[in-house]
Amino acid sequence: MTEREDALDRLIRSLPAGAVLTEPASMDAYRWDRANDPDAGVPLAVVRAISTEDVQAAVRFAASTGTPIVPRGAGTGLSGGSSAADGCLVVSLERMRAIEIDVDTRMATVQPGALNAEVKAAAALHGLWYPPDPSSSEICSIGGNIATNAGGLCCVKYGVTTDYVLGLTVVLADGRAVRLGGPRVKDVAGLSLTKLFVGSEGTLGIVTEIILRLVPAQRPPTTLVATFPTLEGATTAVMDIARTARPSMLEFMDRVTIGAVEDVLRMGLDRTAAAMLVVQSDEHGEAAAAEIAAVEAICAGHGASECFATADPDEGEAFVHARRTAIPAVERMGTLLLEDVGVPIPRLADLVLGIERIAAEHDLTIAVIAHAGDGNTHPLLVVDPTDAAQKARAEVAYGEIMNLAIGLGGTITGEHGVGRLKRPWLGAQLGADVLELNRRIKTALDPQGILNPGAILEPDPERSGA
Amino acid sequence: MTEREDALDRLIRSLPAGAVLTEPASMDAYRWDRANDPDAGVPLAVVRAISTEDVQAAVRFAASTGTPIVPRGAGTGLSGGSSAADGCLVVSLERMRAIEIDVDTRMATVQPGALNAEVKAAAALHGLWYPPDPSSSEICSIGGNIATNAGGLCCVKYGVTTDYVLGLTVVLADGRAVRLGGPRVKDVAGLSLTKLFVGSEGTLGIVTEIILRLVPAQRPPTTLVATFPTLEGATTAVMDIARTARPSMLEFMDRVTIGAVEDVLRMGLDRTAAAMLVVQSDEHGEAAAAEIAAVEAICAGHGASECFATADPDEGEAFVHARRTAIPAVERMGTLLLEDVGVPIPRLADLVLGIERIAAEHDLTIAVIAHAGDGNTHPLLVVDPTDAAQKARAEVAYGEIMNLAIGLGGTITGEHGVGRLKRPWLGAQLGADVLELNRRIKTALDPQGILNPGAILEPDPERSGA
Repeated sequence: MTEREDALDRLIRSLPAGAVLTEPASMDAYRWDRANDPDAGVPLAVVRAISTEDVQAAVRFAASTGTPIVPRGAGTGLSGGSSAADGCLVVSLERMRAIEIDVDTRMATVQPGALNAEVKAAAALHGLWYPPDPSSSEICSIGGNIATNAGGLCCVKYGVTTDYVLGLTVVLADGRAVRLGGPRVKDVAGLSLTKLFVGSEGTLGIVTEIILRLVPAQRPPTTLVATFPTLEGATTAVMDIARTARPSMLEFMDRVTIGAVEDVLRMGLDRTAAAMLVVQSDEHGEAAAAEIAAVEAICAGHGASECFATADPDEGEAFVHARRTAIPAVERMGTLLLEDVGVPIPRLADLVLGIERIAAEHDLTIAVIAHAGDGNTHPLLVVDPTDAAQKARAEVAYGEIMNLAIGLGGTITGEHGVGRLKRPWLGAQLGADVLELNRRIKTALDPQGILNPGAILEPDPERSGA
Repeated sequence: MTEREDALDRLIRSLPAGAVLTEPASMDAYRWDRANDPDAGVPLAVVRAISTEDVQAAVRFAASTGTPIVPRGAGTGLSGGSSAADGCLVVSLERMRAIEIDVDTRMATVQPGALNAEVKAAAALHGLWYPPDPSSSEICSIGGNIATNAGGLCCVKYGVTTDYVLGLTVVLADGRAVRLGGPRVKDVAGLSLTKLFVGSEGTLGIVTEIILRLVPAQRPPTTLVATFPTLEGATTAVMDIARTARPSMLEFMDRVTIGAVEDVLRMGLDRTAAAMLVVQSDEHGEAAAAEIAAVEAICAGHGASECFATADPDEGEAFVHARRTAIPAVERMGTLLLEDVGVPIPRLADLVLGIERIAAEHDLTIAVIAHAGDGNTHPLLVVDPTDAAQKARAEVAYGEIMNLAIGLGGTITGEHGVGRLKRPWLGAQLGADVLELNRRIKTALDPQGILNPGAILEPDPERSGA
């Protein structure tokens, strides 16, 4: 046996029976996330941890043998942050799913494999709410949400994942476990390491426990659905709404998306509209009615062809469900290349119209959905997997959309993370100096370069784990 | 001339006339913050920057000569984070005070020397609100708020400084200036460096521009003032309020504080009460009345001797003003050693009663005020500067209070920062591994150790700037 085989054998024997997979067939489920990276490699082994100690054992094996580690939660990432590398150790947190709610402090202590929707449900049992709500809430894990600093639909009013993270237990690159932060709303003792680990995509450490801040249950929302004959009307309405109101949701769907959703749900959406907004207010009673009325007036002023308002939460939820259905609905049209570009709100029109232009220039179908109130859009490039020429055009357009966002003072990723897919564009957004700062932090915390090499940053060829 | 004198001369000539002070008398105003560290040194020079470029020139001088830099804003820090070191270069940001409000994106672009209250006022002109509100709002700078991740009274509902920081311009230890983040609510491109620099107390870089998120103006609050005959009654009421309501303010003053404030303001506060709570709700209309009524019922249930509720914002503000007056009022009783310890809410009673015990054991007067809804307390140790024995007892008690907080799962600093004063206790809270993580980040970003050496972390004797 080689030294590495010997060490792996010891790791397998030190962990609970069945915790480590090494058969290629059984490891297949751990090679890809939803980015479906065609370059995903074949792991050496998959560790399905059930405790912090299991993760520590896995990391110690990796550190001692220079084996790259790819951590993963539910595998729903959209940027290839959990694509396996050849010969890597996949550390899966899917079995670590405990959730404890402390009603006295309004906090949840959760393991990373717990699904976002499970945390929400556990909080709701006590009249509490964990706001961050990626569209994939039912299938994505809290650990993955931490890794990418995930957002969602409520962020326009309630912020993103990092705003709710008070403490983390993290296994470092050398196998030590540390606790950062804790059950304290305010704590400035030392550097803001908790915040640094949120959004680090498994490149600085592996999160094994999370303390989340909860808030009282949201009030039932009042909902407005507005359809527009032009993209300009919808995007300028978004800007006026964002400037004057404080909606708890402000979502956008374009014509391609409306059609795709209507194909699936048959709920009578206007397929001829250029765009549709779904706006909610969760203010108290009359304040919500007044806020929605003001939003309706803005939409009408920007030429909305139809506005429909309802204070019935179930009726409103049907339209939110339509919005959440957008990605799977568009996915029925072909394979998707999924963007996550964001811009300052005043540039939203330029972004959306620019994407329409890019779609026309490359003869592509691009559906656009957006967390419009945040300026965060998800252009979905639809590709026929049997059409190689179209696929090549889509890959060019994919880069052009990121360059467009950067040119508008925006970001290549608002909430999905850089992963491996968007890495080539990161430098263009951040510039060489900031990229180098990222690299310095990475090297300081993972000198061997074994933690998720290739995610966010280029692997460092000088480091053994890369 | 020595090489350093020569370099300083070049620096002086490269900056606007009068920007650099070198006369000891004129530098006196830049040696201390409000911690009044008796060990503060005499600087080599003070640079009063008016631009990012000025700061870059100062840092390049320091980097090339191995001169320690102590950055400072308005000098209102309470932990000695801006105490000058002998031979250091003080970089003062007090002259960089520009504030620009962008109503379309609800963001403010501000220079670090702008006062917190100035930013609030500029936002208010457009119906907008910058929530973080340290009690020192009128005199503290935004740059200092960023350095310590400052809190305040509204944090119980609206979070702390970091929750409002979207972007930073930072001068790094080698003089390069970088832009981190930007005018985007959601942005996960690369590591969360913006968040890392917030709360770093000038040890990783010098912030020269800040992009802040603003929110719509707060609704006029409804206020409840409740007095309690026992500390237990007040602290258990706090826990029940925090568990069941969502006040926009939940402040605590003990008997010593009430007396000191009453001495100054003569507003008829009950000097016999053991504690007083000031609670506000900024919910809409009836919802605020209902929330305050529920809070009043909780206070009555925990034995409040008097409750006074008012929907008149001015009447309520009088009590908030009383709370804000606490530190200067207690300061009339002697020199203060000011704590900033926090605990999880359920341990607040243990903390407050423990502080009472420590005061008795050491025959000291300790006034306690608290952002009670956050579990963040400010015990104020009152010292007669002419009484050396009392001063020695106070210094022992100062450490015991921090150890008490650590033992209760709390923090040595909730919002003031570690600075130089609390540095000896940081390791006891964080543990050796997390302290070492702090050190690694510091070394990665400031390899020479020239940026505010001695703040947060012990100076590294192996590094030239230390």
